[in-house]
Amino acid sequence: MPNLKLVIEYVGTAYHGWQVQPAVPTIQGAVQEALGIALRAPVLARGAARTDAGVHARGQVASVVTESQVQTSRLERSLNAILPADIAVRSVVEVPDTFHARHSARGRIYRYQIIEGEPLSPFYREFAAHYRARLDVDAMSEAAGALVGLHDFSSFRAAGDVSDSPVKEIRRSTVERSGEREDLLVYTVEATSFLQHMVRNIAGTLIEVGRGRIGAHEIVSILRGRDRRLAGPTAPARGLCLLEVLYDRLAPHGSG
Amino acid sequence: MPNLKLVIEYVGTAYHGWQVQPAVPTIQGAVQEALGIALRAPVLARGAARTDAGVHARGQVASVVTESQVQTSRLERSLNAILPADIAVRSVVEVPDTFHARHSARGRIYRYQIIEGEPLSPFYREFAAHYRARLDVDAMSEAAGALVGLHDFSSFRAAGDVSDSPVKEIRRSTVERSGEREDLLVYTVEATSFLQHMVRNIAGTLIEVGRGRIGAHEIVSILRGRDRRLAGPTAPARGLCLLEVLYDRLAPHGSG
Repeated sequence: MPNLKLVIEYVGTAYHGWQVQPAVPTIQGAVQEALGIALRAPVLARGAARTDAGVHARGQVASVVTESQVQTSRLERSLNAILPADIAVRSVVEVPDTFHARHSARGRIYRYQIIEGEPLSPFYREFAAHYRARLDVDAMSEAAGALVGLHDFSSFRAAGDVSDSPVKEIRRSTVERSGEREDLLVYTVEATSFLQHMVRNIAGTLIEVGRGRIGAHEIVSILRGRDRRLAGPTAPARGLCLLEVLYDRLAPHGSG
Repeated sequence: MPNLKLVIEYVGTAYHGWQVQPAVPTIQGAVQEALGIALRAPVLARGAARTDAGVHARGQVASVVTESQVQTSRLERSLNAILPADIAVRSVVEVPDTFHARHSARGRIYRYQIIEGEPLSPFYREFAAHYRARLDVDAMSEAAGALVGLHDFSSFRAAGDVSDSPVKEIRRSTVERSGEREDLLVYTVEATSFLQHMVRNIAGTLIEVGRGRIGAHEIVSILRGRDRRLAGPTAPARGLCLLEVLYDRLAPHGSG
């Protein structure tokens, strides 16, 4: 049975996140519905990451096992013809049976955008957290860098998170002003995997650092405290975008 | 009577361009309506550039002469409270009587965005022209550079344009891949002023160059031919954004 890897891009504003829920629009629901029509059989699309309501993706990955005969380029065109304009399938490739979007992933890269100043730019209403005054990017950058490494991230973990362990490894964690515009700050973070709300809780804490309410060096004691109450608030979903899911190079596979 | 300079940012998608027209929403109409409420008197907002329907702006400039007493920071807040979320007033400053948004302008900078590939990215539906295959950026860049200087731009002039002269001076004209994403091409052009549809006609021609339908060197003969039929089609409005209007440094002025 063909195993397919789909790379999916979406503006998450109109959706209640990736995961299917009854009676509300979700990305997974829309993708599975399109797959059902294109493949003429119901299928499950397993996502690499469960993005929250309002979170965006440039490179979400889903794996799909189907009993249908598939011509991948034709399936990609069909899916994009069926899907609403805020969801696009960037690629469909056939992968070995062992590939699983979530379990096979070796890393995830997220971006969190913050826009400064008053008024809020009309271009970033749905794509950035908004902070009225100027933020101290140097302090934010220093705090962000201190998170790199293998740590217990309990201080940045959502209350309801059911992950096995709060220990995660952050490989990259940077804050920069965007080349695109001066008032846009971009936090980029890469880890093997993340706890629930971890990026948004880090982003909320970095904003507090940028405002001068938390010192850049204090992030280390927040991390060591392993207590969610030490960190800043959860930054809004709209600023978050799943940029890329990383995998080992896939071995060649037999067709069909 | 106070003379005010407003810098205005807008997502133009929902508007029939800058200029007031009967019975349709326009940026100028929305701005004048907000000013009328805030100043309790009808006023005229003179724009530096008449952006077309669907064109965006990061830095449109309007000048407004009012008989009302004005506290600029309060007026800015009031306007942003009244204006719809797709229009924002970035600043309001009092300027000398001699300042006129259009006549005083020493230059305009526009950006034209083109996104490549299939399917269209959901993030750029309203902010870029879409071209399905890969474009030759080097050829486009060479052609764009050949437009720098003082030229007769009749080949890139809209049929109905009523400008005095087709001679304009382009000071900057570059095509680059965006730092933001690989499949996004950005054309940036600065001139003292532009003919109607000039940037969109140039962008449409550069896309033809990128597709290999027009050679990079041919842009010079298109320019010299002074015939609109020689150039490429008018690229869609949604890719265009007025980035900035340039003025001489303003002299200090008396208050009130």
